[in-house]
Amino acid sequence: MRVASSGRLVREVGEFALIDQISRLVGRDTWSRLRIGIGDDAAVWRPRPGHDVVITTDVLVERVHFRLDWTDWGSLGHKALAVNLSDIAAMGARPRLALVDLGLRGSERDQEVLDFYRSARKLGQRFGLVIAGGDTTRAPNGVLIAVTVVGDVPRDSRPLLTRAAARPGDVIGVTGPLGLAAAGLRVLERGLKTLDGSPRMQEAYHRPQPRVREGMLLRRCGVRAAMDLSDGLLGDLPKICERSGVSAIVDLHRVPIPNAIKWGFPDWRDLALRGGEDYELLFTAPQHVFERVCRAFRRAGLRPPYRIGHIVEAGAEGPRVKLRNVLGKLEEIEPGGYAHFKS
Amino acid sequence: MRVASSGRLVREVGEFALIDQISRLVGRDTWSRLRIGIGDDAAVWRPRPGHDVVITTDVLVERVHFRLDWTDWGSLGHKALAVNLSDIAAMGARPRLALVDLGLRGSERDQEVLDFYRSARKLGQRFGLVIAGGDTTRAPNGVLIAVTVVGDVPRDSRPLLTRAAARPGDVIGVTGPLGLAAAGLRVLERGLKTLDGSPRMQEAYHRPQPRVREGMLLRRCGVRAAMDLSDGLLGDLPKICERSGVSAIVDLHRVPIPNAIKWGFPDWRDLALRGGEDYELLFTAPQHVFERVCRAFRRAGLRPPYRIGHIVEAGAEGPRVKLRNVLGKLEEIEPGGYAHFKS
Repeated sequence: MRVASSGRLVREVGEFALIDQISRLVGRDTWSRLRIGIGDDAAVWRPRPGHDVVITTDVLVERVHFRLDWTDWGSLGHKALAVNLSDIAAMGARPRLALVDLGLRGSERDQEVLDFYRSARKLGQRFGLVIAGGDTTRAPNGVLIAVTVVGDVPRDSRPLLTRAAARPGDVIGVTGPLGLAAAGLRVLERGLKTLDGSPRMQEAYHRPQPRVREGMLLRRCGVRAAMDLSDGLLGDLPKICERSGVSAIVDLHRVPIPNAIKWGFPDWRDLALRGGEDYELLFTAPQHVFERVCRAFRRAGLRPPYRIGHIVEAGAEGPRVKLRNVLGKLEEIEPGGYAHFKS
Repeated sequence: MRVASSGRLVREVGEFALIDQISRLVGRDTWSRLRIGIGDDAAVWRPRPGHDVVITTDVLVERVHFRLDWTDWGSLGHKALAVNLSDIAAMGARPRLALVDLGLRGSERDQEVLDFYRSARKLGQRFGLVIAGGDTTRAPNGVLIAVTVVGDVPRDSRPLLTRAAARPGDVIGVTGPLGLAAAGLRVLERGLKTLDGSPRMQEAYHRPQPRVREGMLLRRCGVRAAMDLSDGLLGDLPKICERSGVSAIVDLHRVPIPNAIKWGFPDWRDLALRGGEDYELLFTAPQHVFERVCRAFRRAGLRPPYRIGHIVEAGAEGPRVKLRNVLGKLEEIEPGGYAHFKS
């Protein structure tokens, strides 16, 4: 599905001319607190007084995280920023600026690189984020992308969302359905255009929607424990349990798994629970806080979260995640989602 | 010179166990303003009130920026952090925290990866910097490193050091000798251990010393224009001229080039002026400010900077860099150092 692209080869354009084109595209974006953006040794930012600064980074490597024959450069720019925005969302913070590192073979077209920045910029603008710098370099053995996002959060009585704050009695919530991105990857692997006539699986894989507004609302509603789902529910929920010293019981029939996935894939359960890359927020909170969240999401025009289980004391064996089927039977799971290096 | 390394293969250790080892090494480092370090979705930092935040990032790609048969993992960790500290220094700011992304083939030893972090940590500690997070991933086609460093700088009457603030009449200063790193690379390329009996060329290449204290002093002394030398004097000085709308005259005989380079390489001039990777600071300032800098450096026990030329009005042809030989003859140069993609 690779589309022939217009524009000149990056190796013919050269590094400095390419940076110049990128600067013309994103370098004008600014806001009053960005003192120095693209073009100097570093970006300079004036944090809002009384706000903590939140910072995160993620790397995407060609043929590990993406394949250029399956994705277009616009989707790549979207996704590279989205996965970082998702980490900022998972802290309950507001994204402010991004630095984008791009390693290129040299055989790309300048228009492809600009598409990359154009859609990263478009996604960022939805949340008031500015691309303030980065680094371009040669990477002969495959494209690589490293993005850093900086956000801020008011220092008020409500704490940040961390992985260590789940407490027994909390209910477990998730902001959206699981498994669509993993199903989208399956569809791409099989060389199909779509499975059910709808592009939403590939869209979920290519252009995940970071839950930035949801994360900020969670924090404002008094939620304390959250993370974003990048390694699948059974890869990530154990991290919250481990860090919080608690166990979790997930009601399998409550986990929002789209019917198209159940119908389309015999292993839909693993796909939805371990597939990863959903970038929905997973959080825990006391029941009354959860209800407050539902009301706040509805008021803001957001889909209310799904309640999928609850937190209990860790037993003698330490933090565990158990699945409960519709008959109430408990099943202990092997924790884990996608693991690098080993696969 | 690759040394057989102890430890287990990264692909056998697995991602999460490796992160665990890294966390045990650097995760305990903290300071009062780092609220959340390694282990959550993002790092959280409480900026000092009234300080601006400075942020920079750089990528190193195997076989483009380093070769694993020429370097050890400790040097790699040092250099990856040093090049970013150098950008922070070039703004006159104080480094505070770093995020380190590491892409690994899987065939590395865990001890090598820990050596990487150990020496990055050691360099950072000299300046009070904490490694607060990052990302590890699989990179089957070659090791890659992306580092982001965040620093801060008091919001006082003295501006940050930028590339756009050079003014006609300024003298041009540089904090140390040029060409050692490029010479070190030459020595490595030739498979030699040393050229002149001293390891300083390879040391300059493998373990550049970021001029952090110098950068902070420059700003405090009232210097306004600076950058760090990564692309060589003739690659970088034109960037200051371009951004400031001025021209520069460099007195060739004043450029500090070690004798060992002049004796060892017939093309010593290009090596020293275009070789790059020196990571000394290049700055411009009025004469009386330059003298103040010399006194301040001496008081702080630092080598005073070299005065290598001066800034003039840009002529009708726009910003230019000219070299002046000892007889006073001017020679216009082709600007440029090392360019990615094109080489």
